[in-house]
Amino acid sequence: MQHIAEKLGYPPGSKLLIIHADDLGVAHSADTATFQALEEKDVTAASVMVPCPWLTEVADFAKSHPGADLGIHLTLTSEWETYRWGPVAPRDQVQSLLDPNGYFYADNGPVAVHARPEEAEREVRAQIERAMAMGIHPTHLDIHMGTLAATPQLYSVLIKVAHEYHLPFMAVRLPGHLGEEMLKLVSPNDIVLDHLVMFDSHVPENQWTASYVKAIESLQPGLSEMIVHLAHDDSEMQAITTGHPDYGAAWRQRDFSAVRSAEIKQALKQNHIILVGWKQLDKLVR
Amino acid sequence: MQHIAEKLGYPPGSKLLIIHADDLGVAHSADTATFQALEEKDVTAASVMVPCPWLTEVADFAKSHPGADLGIHLTLTSEWETYRWGPVAPRDQVQSLLDPNGYFYADNGPVAVHARPEEAEREVRAQIERAMAMGIHPTHLDIHMGTLAATPQLYSVLIKVAHEYHLPFMAVRLPGHLGEEMLKLVSPNDIVLDHLVMFDSHVPENQWTASYVKAIESLQPGLSEMIVHLAHDDSEMQAITTGHPDYGAAWRQRDFSAVRSAEIKQALKQNHIILVGWKQLDKLVR
Repeated sequence: MQHIAEKLGYPPGSKLLIIHADDLGVAHSADTATFQALEEKDVTAASVMVPCPWLTEVADFAKSHPGADLGIHLTLTSEWETYRWGPVAPRDQVQSLLDPNGYFYADNGPVAVHARPEEAEREVRAQIERAMAMGIHPTHLDIHMGTLAATPQLYSVLIKVAHEYHLPFMAVRLPGHLGEEMLKLVSPNDIVLDHLVMFDSHVPENQWTASYVKAIESLQPGLSEMIVHLAHDDSEMQAITTGHPDYGAAWRQRDFSAVRSAEIKQALKQNHIILVGWKQLDKLVR
Repeated sequence: MQHIAEKLGYPPGSKLLIIHADDLGVAHSADTATFQALEEKDVTAASVMVPCPWLTEVADFAKSHPGADLGIHLTLTSEWETYRWGPVAPRDQVQSLLDPNGYFYADNGPVAVHARPEEAEREVRAQIERAMAMGIHPTHLDIHMGTLAATPQLYSVLIKVAHEYHLPFMAVRLPGHLGEEMLKLVSPNDIVLDHLVMFDSHVPENQWTASYVKAIESLQPGLSEMIVHLAHDDSEMQAITTGHPDYGAAWRQRDFSAVRSAEIKQALKQNHIILVGWKQLDKLVR
């Protein structure tokens, strides 16, 4: 079977990398950092959280940057303490997705337990339709906090809707049982990432960029995605992420500094990494 | 008929003043400024926009400050360009309040034309119930951008719900036809403000505090409310209010500086102004 690299016209054994910024729309702080990184090509793609208040700012950017590679960061959680959001679909039609205050649950656990797949599907469709109505033409679908991969039932919803819209979606050859169970649901023509690079809290702060460089040096042939969360370490982002150093304001500022660093640019070059976006992959599933 | 001042135990002819901060919950920038002003008694009351993303931050403040005089700033508009919000009630039950993207309209005009009173009532009730469920015990109801006073039909909704919850609501002896038509709907026991002090764009920036001082010196006997909009002139507030200097970030910073100024404190003292909150008035309608 031909690998994606060859389908895109690259030699077999090529190392393709998407550098992807999550969480557009969550905050002005995240939007400005991510817009800058997209404009300066520090990242190749990004995705937007449709239920969040700054969606209009992202839609304006999409209209003035028709070439930008923007997907939908399908969102079924509202994970911060002081700043919450709820569904795009009418609340009474997606009640199984909502906490007692009418917001999304804060974490994946309650979604996995309570979400009715048909209500998840209704909300997923509403997010895609809202984004398109506002002028965002998505190149891909991915999944905030991986919620839509929390159970095979939810993952089936993602695949069903992605196929219907002819959009590539988040699928990774992950080791372990759940990953394999998910992969059985994927069709032969779907794009599947070979590797994922995403930092967790074990990466020491003072080795942030160096750790990305190491990850780039370790990339294997195939299609990889490096997931970053960009923002400024400012009062808005600090207030949103209060109490959560993981994926907090300083974390996102470190990611922003890292993707713009000379060290990463050099590592990409020296290791013959071919940067791609979802826009190119998009064509393979249409 | 006994005036409110006497009902509260003050001599006839007293000048009572509520200094009221609008728009809690709209932004972290507005929340921190308003919380500080409430704690330092620069304002006597404030009100919260329940559909906005920072509601939880306000609810946390309410829980840690049970004495705080907080009302509901009933909101049927979403007036900024980059940052939008929609209803608390299920979207499909309040469709006449929503623009094609599912947000509230940006201005009062379309609400006056399209809003079905029963849907406005449904949304008003949902906002009050959501606030109470989150631990905010409102002392009064007021109206963001005056939308619920845009037509007598909408104003009737406000009065009906306020009476049901036994809460004072925004009513002012305003000159002009519409004000009189509204006042006919008010019951004899309702609290009616005698005067309202609120700046428009004609106040020169460099005479901001001086103009408030002048307004304080001109206060007449009776019950007055000075409406301010507090926030920091920071990147979050600048981004939210982009393109709108009126009620913009710098405007709100000027209000914040003014209410904390020695000049205003002195003017209040010299003019024998009695500061009151809605909490005290609240008792008169229960």
